[in-house]
Amino acid sequence: MNKKPESKIDWHYECYRGVRYGLEGKLILEEISPFQKITIYESIRYGRALLLDDCWMTAEKAEKFYHECLIHPALCCSKQINNILIIGGGDGGSARECLKYKDVMSIDLVEIDSRVIELSKKYLPTIGGNAWSDSRLHLQIKNGIDWVKNIKDNSYDVIIIDGADPIGPSKELFSISFYKDCKRILKPGGILATQSESPEFFQKIHINIIQVLREIFNYADPIYGSVPIYPSGLWSWTFACMEEAKYMRPKKSRIKEISESCQIWSERWHQGAFNTIPAFIERELKKI
Amino acid sequence: MNKKPESKIDWHYECYRGVRYGLEGKLILEEISPFQKITIYESIRYGRALLLDDCWMTAEKAEKFYHECLIHPALCCSKQINNILIIGGGDGGSARECLKYKDVMSIDLVEIDSRVIELSKKYLPTIGGNAWSDSRLHLQIKNGIDWVKNIKDNSYDVIIIDGADPIGPSKELFSISFYKDCKRILKPGGILATQSESPEFFQKIHINIIQVLREIFNYADPIYGSVPIYPSGLWSWTFACMEEAKYMRPKKSRIKEISESCQIWSERWHQGAFNTIPAFIERELKKI
Repeated sequence: MNKKPESKIDWHYECYRGVRYGLEGKLILEEISPFQKITIYESIRYGRALLLDDCWMTAEKAEKFYHECLIHPALCCSKQINNILIIGGGDGGSARECLKYKDVMSIDLVEIDSRVIELSKKYLPTIGGNAWSDSRLHLQIKNGIDWVKNIKDNSYDVIIIDGADPIGPSKELFSISFYKDCKRILKPGGILATQSESPEFFQKIHINIIQVLREIFNYADPIYGSVPIYPSGLWSWTFACMEEAKYMRPKKSRIKEISESCQIWSERWHQGAFNTIPAFIERELKKI
Repeated sequence: MNKKPESKIDWHYECYRGVRYGLEGKLILEEISPFQKITIYESIRYGRALLLDDCWMTAEKAEKFYHECLIHPALCCSKQINNILIIGGGDGGSARECLKYKDVMSIDLVEIDSRVIELSKKYLPTIGGNAWSDSRLHLQIKNGIDWVKNIKDNSYDVIIIDGADPIGPSKELFSISFYKDCKRILKPGGILATQSESPEFFQKIHINIIQVLREIFNYADPIYGSVPIYPSGLWSWTFACMEEAKYMRPKKSRIKEISESCQIWSERWHQGAFNTIPAFIERELKKI
């Protein structure tokens, strides 16, 4: 009797610098898109998961630890939130969190790899949720670097950079010229948000993101949290603003709008997360 | 030619509920003590590591993420810190952090398993550091439950509970009668500190520890951080006090004494860590 390969319970690992993080489950599919290797995996612990180039990106039951931390510090604090740009974010989780706010009128989601969107819609439908059918969401299957180059000044209230690690197609999302374009197309009073890696696993990249954003935008600060499926546990997101550290002051009306639906983020968490900077990172930033 | 078995580079895993966390390296030794299985492992990423009953406990280059968070919120804030009790903590890391304070005159380290101490001293000497030769440290190879039962009232300024998960020999370190004895032997103005598990992986146990400590001590609050070698990344420690939430107010002189040597903890981190309570845990605690 033939045993279907997809019924096999096994382990799937991300492996990096002597550390492996594995989830028990079964492989759903693996394909090579023009940009990267895409894997969909059904894990027992965290539900369906997406890997890009063999790195855990998101999983149905762990994604809130990432998306709430990337989105709400920006959207709760920005002067306006009518027009949003998301670079990357093809799993739909960032768009879903943005669309919780009634003032959000339009989101351009610029994802380079259409297969990430197609496979996320099909296999991880809870992550994007209603976002995929929301008329405010505009999918742009484009290179994010080109997109920001070609957009006119002062176009967006908030820019979300929801890319993978600085290797593969996401590499240029960490470059100075890209951040400069982001600043140019961001409206006054607007906020840029980016994932900024693990301060423990990728200390230099993490420090560099904060440093470069401070030079370009004047104000930039990281928050710290934890994403269960990322190898070092500790993770960070950095927010930048031109006029003042606006991202530290959430607006009462917006807090009210989203609090009930949040699992991680709260006004209290928001204040705390800007302060839980590990001493070794605070010291490094003071040297600059 | 024979290849020595100890030269083999391999992977070693902790496996729990569909999640595996593995480090590349080589096994140094594995033995069954009268209380538990003890493993010493040489990892490439985090140096020498200790496992108890196949769970990662500590590693030379990851231990500060745990020990600084357990010790300093208690020792920076307690009214006095002359006499300290540590239950568990056989790797020596908690004692080392306590001994940074000149006001600490005596530490009773009550560890049930002498082999944990012997093997930590031999294979993980940097974790205990100078603590092992410090005349203020008094090793007591005893059951912590019995120890607190037999100590007279108001004996300690600070009590540190540095045990493993609530299975095996550490199980009773999470019981009501144990906490009641701790309260009885704690001096007025003193603080109890305990590791309180991952709110993500062990939500019920985590909530229960806070709830029980609040009932017994009147004041108890968790802090949140991240320990790279623990499966879910997110970890917690809870502090309890009888008169007021004293653990939230570090004393300036003590901050000064330890700040330079800390990698994670700082006064700023301390304030932040009491606020980064995930929204789903805050909601659960409000129900109680």
